[in-house]
Amino acid sequence: MPDRRTIAVIGAGYWGPNLARNFKANPDWELAAICDLDRERAQRVADAVGGAAVVTSLDEVLADAAIDAVAIATPARTHHDVVCAALAAGKHVVVEKPLADSRELGERMVRAAAERGLVLMTDHTYCYTPAVMRIRQLIEEGELGDILFVDSVRINLGLIQPDVDVFWDLAPHDLSVLDFILPGGLRPKSVSAQGADPLGAGKACIGYLSLPFGNGSIAHVHVNWLSPTKIRQMVIGGTKRTLVWDDLNPQQRLSIYDRGVDIDRQSAATAERRAATVSYRLGDTWSPALPEHEALAAMASEFAAAISEGRPARTDGHAGMRVLSVLDAAAISLRAAGAAVPVDAGHASPSNRSPLEVVA
Amino acid sequence: MPDRRTIAVIGAGYWGPNLARNFKANPDWELAAICDLDRERAQRVADAVGGAAVVTSLDEVLADAAIDAVAIATPARTHHDVVCAALAAGKHVVVEKPLADSRELGERMVRAAAERGLVLMTDHTYCYTPAVMRIRQLIEEGELGDILFVDSVRINLGLIQPDVDVFWDLAPHDLSVLDFILPGGLRPKSVSAQGADPLGAGKACIGYLSLPFGNGSIAHVHVNWLSPTKIRQMVIGGTKRTLVWDDLNPQQRLSIYDRGVDIDRQSAATAERRAATVSYRLGDTWSPALPEHEALAAMASEFAAAISEGRPARTDGHAGMRVLSVLDAAAISLRAAGAAVPVDAGHASPSNRSPLEVVA
Amino acid sequence: MPDRRTIAVIGAGYWGPNLARNFKANPDWELAAICDLDRERAQRVADAVGGAAVVTSLDEVLADAAIDAVAIATPARTHHDVVCAALAAGKHVVVEKPLADSRELGERMVRAAAERGLVLMTDHTYCYTPAVMRIRQLIEEGELGDILFVDSVRINLGLIQPDVDVFWDLAPHDLSVLDFILPGGLRPKSVSAQGADPLGAGKACIGYLSLPFGNGSIAHVHVNWLSPTKIRQMVIGGTKRTLVWDDLNPQQRLSIYDRGVDIDRQSAATAERRAATVSYRLGDTWSPALPEHEALAAMASEFAAAISEGRPARTDGHAGMRVLSVLDAAAISLRAAGAAVPVDAGHASPSNRSPLEVVA
Amino acid sequence: MPDRRTIAVIGAGYWGPNLARNFKANPDWELAAICDLDRERAQRVADAVGGAAVVTSLDEVLADAAIDAVAIATPARTHHDVVCAALAAGKHVVVEKPLADSRELGERMVRAAAERGLVLMTDHTYCYTPAVMRIRQLIEEGELGDILFVDSVRINLGLIQPDVDVFWDLAPHDLSVLDFILPGGLRPKSVSAQGADPLGAGKACIGYLSLPFGNGSIAHVHVNWLSPTKIRQMVIGGTKRTLVWDDLNPQQRLSIYDRGVDIDRQSAATAERRAATVSYRLGDTWSPALPEHEALAAMASEFAAAISEGRPARTDGHAGMRVLSVLDAAAISLRAAGAAVPVDAGHASPSNRSPLEVVA
Repeated sequence: MPDRRTIAVIGAGYWGPNLARNFKANPDWELAAICDLDRERAQRVADAVGGAAVVTSLDEVLADAAIDAVAIATPARTHHDVVCAALAAGKHVVVEKPLADSRELGERMVRAAAERGLVLMTDHTYCYTPAVMRIRQLIEEGELGDILFVDSVRINLGLIQPDVDVFWDLAPHDLSVLDFILPGGLRPKSVSAQGADPLGAGKACIGYLSLPFGNGSIAHVHVNWLSPTKIRQMVIGGTKRTLVWDDLNPQQRLSIYDRGVDIDRQSAATAERRAATVSYRLGDTWSPALPEHEALAAMASEFAAAISEGRPARTDGHAGMRVLSVLDAAAISLRAAGAAVPVDAGHASPSNRSPLEVVA
Repeated sequence: MPDRRTIAVIGAGYWGPNLARNFKANPDWELAAICDLDRERAQRVADAVGGAAVVTSLDEVLADAAIDAVAIATPARTHHDVVCAALAAGKHVVVEKPLADSRELGERMVRAAAERGLVLMTDHTYCYTPAVMRIRQLIEEGELGDILFVDSVRINLGLIQPDVDVFWDLAPHDLSVLDFILPGGLRPKSVSAQGADPLGAGKACIGYLSLPFGNGSIAHVHVNWLSPTKIRQMVIGGTKRTLVWDDLNPQQRLSIYDRGVDIDRQSAATAERRAATVSYRLGDTWSPALPEHEALAAMASEFAAAISEGRPARTDGHAGMRVLSVLDAAAISLRAAGAAVPVDAGHASPSNRSPLEVVA
Repeated sequence: MPDRRTIAVIGAGYWGPNLARNFKANPDWELAAICDLDRERAQRVADAVGGAAVVTSLDEVLADAAIDAVAIATPARTHHDVVCAALAAGKHVVVEKPLADSRELGERMVRAAAERGLVLMTDHTYCYTPAVMRIRQLIEEGELGDILFVDSVRINLGLIQPDVDVFWDLAPHDLSVLDFILPGGLRPKSVSAQGADPLGAGKACIGYLSLPFGNGSIAHVHVNWLSPTKIRQMVIGGTKRTLVWDDLNPQQRLSIYDRGVDIDRQSAATAERRAATVSYRLGDTWSPALPEHEALAAMASEFAAAISEGRPARTDGHAGMRVLSVLDAAAISLRAAGAAVPVDAGHASPSNRSPLEVVA
Repeated sequence: MPDRRTIAVIGAGYWGPNLARNFKANPDWELAAICDLDRERAQRVADAVGGAAVVTSLDEVLADAAIDAVAIATPARTHHDVVCAALAAGKHVVVEKPLADSRELGERMVRAAAERGLVLMTDHTYCYTPAVMRIRQLIEEGELGDILFVDSVRINLGLIQPDVDVFWDLAPHDLSVLDFILPGGLRPKSVSAQGADPLGAGKACIGYLSLPFGNGSIAHVHVNWLSPTKIRQMVIGGTKRTLVWDDLNPQQRLSIYDRGVDIDRQSAATAERRAATVSYRLGDTWSPALPEHEALAAMASEFAAAISEGRPARTDGHAGMRVLSVLDAAAISLRAAGAAVPVDAGHASPSNRSPLEVVA
């Protein structure tokens, strides 16, 4: 199997075991090692996945010429140093979201990967779920028409994180999905963030993001650590149809409503706005069957494919940067009482998006 | 029946028939007349409720000494003139929400009523539903503890109104409920509004309001005319319990979750915020049975009681003004790209709120 | 309007007001009178619908040559006498379900109508709802394939009726729908009934009906007065697709699942049953939009059309008899500890079912 | 750890891996071996759980004096022979449901265990779930009052089994729960079974069981392999409250409705049944928080505790026999067109039910 590559997982905390299990089971990969400062923790992960070398030194892993790539699941504040060291050692890298804890450091990582011709991938796991892949496909094929609005809610009783607020903890999920499914990627004009810390935890535990786009459409994200009811729902309104993704309803995760409001744009364009003709469509609802696969398995395959084909991964460093740019602008807006903060227009989505079939 | 008062309904459009039906059926009231410029429309309403005089002239109604009060259901932009004329004629007034279409005009109406010692009531209908009355009671009795956040969603496929945007059309419902249930009434520090008009209708069809309060808590409102799924849900998070009001689930409209996040405030107050102890409670859920009554019937009774007892109505002009102040600030924020706009601190909630028993 | 006919409503109790309101509003009909022994009750109904003559004598109504038809909403035990008197007087008749309280009396009523060439219609209201009309259409067009099973649940906290058990009170709804949607009408081989009276009410308050059909398929009905949760759901399993009708979910009343079990019938027919190939389809779900109309309005129109066209009504006396035959067999089975009781094969469904378009 | 016992798992097919994983992880047990005729299959299970001896001969396992107990997960038709051989070798036994494939063989197994003083336990897994343990507790403590009815639905698209019908495949789950929660255990007067095989699979794919009890109450079970919608719901109606267990709603698995029908039993006892006073209660709904634990872990602990304490296991052979007696009577009823078949009154529930605390 000449294409089989060797990988080490760095970090055996919360997410590392999932990465280890999936790279172990993936035919494209050989899991060589689990690396963590805490040997016992690394050993437990190695045992649970049926065996792998255990290493406590990052340098040792990076010095091992037999290792082609690393999957990094360490805290966000360490991403820059660990990723840059791995790239310097010639390793391809996939790194847990968010790409980095600041925009500047993220930029350096992307540049470092580009200079060395290595794959730098962000583990935007949700983008590899059957539901999100189907949403992207439906939008690409024009089933929804032009996107008018996206409203995303991700609320639950959640652990108050010691080092990040609720925006940095939860919103990367929503933002990475937006980046993946919107035709132009996540490129809002500006970001307004509203946060609240009613318990005095020292950081926002409730957050709202408004992301207006140039064409009049808007995305909005609600993240909340303090809600006893769990909601994970995204409504995507289009000119032709509207889609609701309810991630907690396994029996009907996606619903596509063939209904909406039509406005007679000719009359709307005149001075007589009051006379604008509005009409309603009340059509059928449709819920596509989804294949069942684990998202991380598809992510691992995509990482291998990107390396083999010498192309950017579907959720590459630029995707990570578009998410990071919004988080960065949100942090500034938060300090400015919610004022609209422009988002830098760098990191254009690649003109030749890799086709969906690759990971389907 | 010496307490029975006589009322005329002004406006026979969308809401007038409901007012007419309820005042007709209420033992405290005698429905004297339906007034509308369109005689046929007024006649249809009079017939449907089992008979009432039909009048096409407002002056004629106001000149009729036998009429004690008027219920006004004309477009918002006419409220000021009609209400002031009625007050000048010595009539008690109940007026459809919003109180007026500008803060300034609303102030004049409130002053006019106060000067004449007449009851000016805003028809905040939701405040008279069994669900909202129970929510207020639960908060008053301390069942939820201190309020940390309120998240309100009111989205549906809705008619694009010719003269108002989605904030002025839908948000008065959420805001009037907030004013009614929050211990201090609706008195946020500031308002940030985000709107979108993706169809080019000439006004916001999607809207988000953020209302931070002085104590670190926040209320947020999402109103949307373009959503094919109908959601009317309010989550009220408290330090002791959290309440979810799902107005579209008649079998379990209110759910109270005895769970939440506790933070050790002593440690949180120290510099070492990261060490703040967080603990979770996963308790029972409870759904109170609600009595069944029509909200407008309770509203009509409260109007009569306020007049009889010479006291402000439960949803008086000041309540209307607190709602109007937020709408007014939202309109300014909208023009300022969502910047936080302070809300004037006038119109304090009355120190002696009328007890709930009156309308129970 | 030469086709407009005149009707009187007999019985002003629970159902009579609904009939009166719908015949009053229907352009095919003129509502001439409300007849009830209790004059006040009749008067209240007449007032509520905007006026009609009030009569306390059935004879007087039947003697009135200007009256073409009567709609009967008196207790089931009086149906035979009232209907036969009306037919004898030459009136067309629509009668509330069930047609009669015994099979024998029902037969006499059907014969009497046939002999006089008059329309005898059973008010199987559910058959005129948009949901049930659409179900029938989907089955007729072959969308579900052959019907394998129908499981119907109708449970709620219900008033224990003084004169009938839960089968006679609730099951006519399910049975009339089955009769309406099944290609051959409601013609099971036999009926087994299980009832329970755990409160000692003197009659079954919980009931289960099993209705095996000749082709191996089965229908089952669960009716229950003692359930605090309200369920009104019918699952219709077909060889091609399965339909779920959830009458309490207005946002998605009908769901059609394009999935099921396929069995390789050739192998199944051999002795080697264990080797029978079974395969699964997990296809999309689809929820058709339904028009909104009141069922009773469509029923009133169908009654008029049947008279005008000289044809049986869609839910004619024979349909009523097929429902009654099952209820009659169920009562016998109940006394025989649930033994299977054959259902008489009379009352074939009409070979030329009137097309759906008539009432659409 | 003197109490630690040694166990072998017999059968590495569908259920064996779950047993192996749980006995491996349980501090009361040492997992000694996995036994299966197919060595590779056994090895895969041993590897997956982190190691155990692999044996292909049952005799070898039973001859090993170091093994105290066996957990049997072979096809039901082999249970008798395997269990009896294990008991003869002096091993304690836990066996997958159903206990046996006939009542007679089940009796022999229970006798054999009693004669040797060994624990024979049936793996009624559902009885060890937090939800079912809580239901039993609520009934024991009188929260529901007397039980009036139980309605259980377990339907889904299911694999048509080669050797058993839908009753033997699915109903043991419902029946074992009924046996566990009902104060007197599962002791109906008789069983009526209705089955359908509309696809010509050679066995019932749809089944209904009616189980009337001596006191007028009834249990009813609906099992179905052909339903594209998955429902797992049990409604338990009591004189004081009614409980709904929705096993597919993790956010509100149990709901207790404080509402119901009250009948004035004094008047009901008179000849004037029609005058029986009926009253309704519309009270609150309550959903208890449930602890999270894996049912099989609690089952494994209970098996160890029963051995240590020399007492019958909570779901002992007699419980297995009560379930088997109903399945046996159902099979006879099925061949007799649904006639009521009496259930033998043997296998009384133990007078001293082991307290719930043991496995909590």
